[in-house]
Amino acid sequence: MAEPDYKDLGFKDIIVDRDGAVITIWINRAKQRNVVNTNIIEELIRIFELADRDDRVRVVILTAEPTAPAFCSGADISGGWDVLWQEEAEKEGPQAHRDGGGRASLAIYRCRKITISAVNGHAAGVGITALQLPFDLRLVWAGAKITFPFVRRGIVPEATSSYLLPRLLGHSRANSLLLTGETVTPDSPHIRDLYHQILPTRDAVYPAAKALADELAAHTSQTSVALAKSLLQHPGDSIEENHLLDSRVMRITAGSKDGAEGVRSFLERRPPKFVGVLSKDLTDWFPWWRRMDVKHLKTKL
Amino acid sequence: MAEPDYKDLGFKDIIVDRDGAVITIWINRAKQRNVVNTNIIEELIRIFELADRDDRVRVVILTAEPTAPAFCSGADISGGWDVLWQEEAEKEGPQAHRDGGGRASLAIYRCRKITISAVNGHAAGVGITALQLPFDLRLVWAGAKITFPFVRRGIVPEATSSYLLPRLLGHSRANSLLLTGETVTPDSPHIRDLYHQILPTRDAVYPAAKALADELAAHTSQTSVALAKSLLQHPGDSIEENHLLDSRVMRITAGSKDGAEGVRSFLERRPPKFVGVLSKDLTDWFPWWRRMDVKHLKTKL
Amino acid sequence: MAEPDYKDLGFKDIIVDRDGAVITIWINRAKQRNVVNTNIIEELIRIFELADRDDRVRVVILTAEPTAPAFCSGADISGGWDVLWQEEAEKEGPQAHRDGGGRASLAIYRCRKITISAVNGHAAGVGITALQLPFDLRLVWAGAKITFPFVRRGIVPEATSSYLLPRLLGHSRANSLLLTGETVTPDSPHIRDLYHQILPTRDAVYPAAKALADELAAHTSQTSVALAKSLLQHPGDSIEENHLLDSRVMRITAGSKDGAEGVRSFLERRPPKFVGVLSKDLTDWFPWWRRMDVKHLKTKL
Repeated sequence: MAEPDYKDLGFKDIIVDRDGAVITIWINRAKQRNVVNTNIIEELIRIFELADRDDRVRVVILTAEPTAPAFCSGADISGGWDVLWQEEAEKEGPQAHRDGGGRASLAIYRCRKITISAVNGHAAGVGITALQLPFDLRLVWAGAKITFPFVRRGIVPEATSSYLLPRLLGHSRANSLLLTGETVTPDSPHIRDLYHQILPTRDAVYPAAKALADELAAHTSQTSVALAKSLLQHPGDSIEENHLLDSRVMRITAGSKDGAEGVRSFLERRPPKFVGVLSKDLTDWFPWWRRMDVKHLKTKL
Repeated sequence: MAEPDYKDLGFKDIIVDRDGAVITIWINRAKQRNVVNTNIIEELIRIFELADRDDRVRVVILTAEPTAPAFCSGADISGGWDVLWQEEAEKEGPQAHRDGGGRASLAIYRCRKITISAVNGHAAGVGITALQLPFDLRLVWAGAKITFPFVRRGIVPEATSSYLLPRLLGHSRANSLLLTGETVTPDSPHIRDLYHQILPTRDAVYPAAKALADELAAHTSQTSVALAKSLLQHPGDSIEENHLLDSRVMRITAGSKDGAEGVRSFLERRPPKFVGVLSKDLTDWFPWWRRMDVKHLKTKL
Repeated sequence: MAEPDYKDLGFKDIIVDRDGAVITIWINRAKQRNVVNTNIIEELIRIFELADRDDRVRVVILTAEPTAPAFCSGADISGGWDVLWQEEAEKEGPQAHRDGGGRASLAIYRCRKITISAVNGHAAGVGITALQLPFDLRLVWAGAKITFPFVRRGIVPEATSSYLLPRLLGHSRANSLLLTGETVTPDSPHIRDLYHQILPTRDAVYPAAKALADELAAHTSQTSVALAKSLLQHPGDSIEENHLLDSRVMRITAGSKDGAEGVRSFLERRPPKFVGVLSKDLTDWFPWWRRMDVKHLKTKL
């Protein structure tokens, strides 16, 4: 199953296409304004875990039909917040709860491939947290209305957004967005730096994301990307620790097949052909950090 | 004293008004260019501690008369820096000193209500550090001259500005501001992202802050705001710790009265009426971090 | 040797001028497109260590001839990445490698004087990492092409760039730059906030940097700058620790000669004349953090 057939995985709330090294995930709940339910959370976790392990995959895009009412209108709360709790977790009490958006955020954040959120419609709640913030890059339609509504709904910013948003933009703008619950468009100075690229029409977003993904898939080393992401996420506690880390990773990658190809292609003024894959060519002391186990005790997630 | 009469607290250097859930603090030293002395520090600490505990209060605004020569021209150093030392602290030696601007910064930063600095005039020194950086949101007059003069005065950035400013804006712009001591206006790329909103005239700043405060007071949950601020200030040391924290807070808030009202008002397409208050409705494991005691031994502050 | 004659230090790949309190370092490898070799790394480390200790020096500028093909085109990899390894280190195995760019970054980052990178040409690889990111301020030519090419070369971001770039700009823009390997000019929203000033022509960059350096050298306190940099680099782990730190440093600096001159010159409305120097006038508990030793065992670097 390291090389699954993505057409045939039985997903209900997402549709997955693979085109060479690029996977596209389409949110498939247009009739429900693409709101997030518990099932789509599980499907997103599964697809990002598969993409992480599939050596054929170099870039993962999440997007929606540009004709849908929204990219994602948040969580499905038609039955109250209760739909978000899992029965198993409840047996252990409130401390056992694991926020579904946060579980998706972790799976996306931990995926060692390049991840792109192609936001071609409005986004609110989990549609701007889990479905955007843990991604490496975000492209957006200029007209998208973006809302972090939590303090206006009696709850709190979720899906690790209180960790991710200040890291992405700094606390000044994270405060403006999270503590007022305002609705902004991507030209707002509060949010524009969240986006790698802002596109004028809904229809233009996915093609731009796909073109970027194809270009990156063709010209970047899979192992370099995974290790660069790891250095950014786990840089060490000081500049000195970072120096020790990047020195060691540089030494190993420069001595690798992809490192040699990087020099050769540069000197020969031609595009590189990288062959390194995560299943075989990662340094044997990767990962250098310890991953905290956040599963609770009595349930299998 | 959980519901003080703000008109009758005996303040000398500030004037405090309460209008429903919004408190406005007016700096009342226009004749001295609103410079900060030791008394106003104590008054600011007291008012933010009171506002933190008063369940009626949801938003606190700090501002000045728009006709004053400045929003705040810094510390009163007409008698040298010595005016800043407290005699009591001196008995323990230099290590006992607690910077007054920093003591005010901590009281403002720890206030669990929404805090807004309405900067309707020039600001220098402690007028841009303690009186702006620890606030959640800052509104400013486009013509305000802002100066961090420390390296040009033989001292160092104070009032926890070397902690707060890089968190708010990143180190590139914090360096530009703190290491050159330059004077900028809010349109400077070095500082503009510090401000939630930039207003064209001095007279427009407070009304904009008050309108924002009134809107937030009417539409946000007091407990949601306090917990969202806490998540932003104490997010955990990793994305996993943050996931555990926000999961637990989400579970509790979603099960609260304000969480239920958040869903109901959303489904009924009407503004919410939140009733939760900090004195009664905070989760019983709040705060989840340990607050460091920074008072010195021999004095009562 | 605390006051070296900078004209006579035997450098090959850099040229060093001292003009009063301002040192200018010219990259002197125009024929090689100013690529970085192992020798220039050693020369840069030496000059920044000397400038750090020389009380006469207040500002250090790094620049290139504006007629050179580039400010710095990266590392010299004409012989493959192997040119970057040091024979001594190899005896201990890959874990002993210390990235040359990172060693330069550390020397620049640790220099307690104001450091300015005057980027008057294109910059790639180590030319945008070590030669720009560890500096306090960066000035740049608007037409400079800037590239972080690592993931397109089979290696990883080096020279502590995975630590420094997110701190300077936040992770959103650091991701855009480091994970795509894109080439940008300073007007790109991905990178513009990295620069203190953007100049229209290559010829304008160094004069602007020199004018800024002269102004800062004349008006800032050497000890204030060193302590402000230290507070920004080592602010403590919480706002409370920062409050204790800046309180103590404020108390000491305000009681110093430069602190007294800061007040006097302000009250007398004249430029200050600061006399404090790092060799004599730093607080005796400086540094307050422990510097990690990153040298390896068997070699003398």
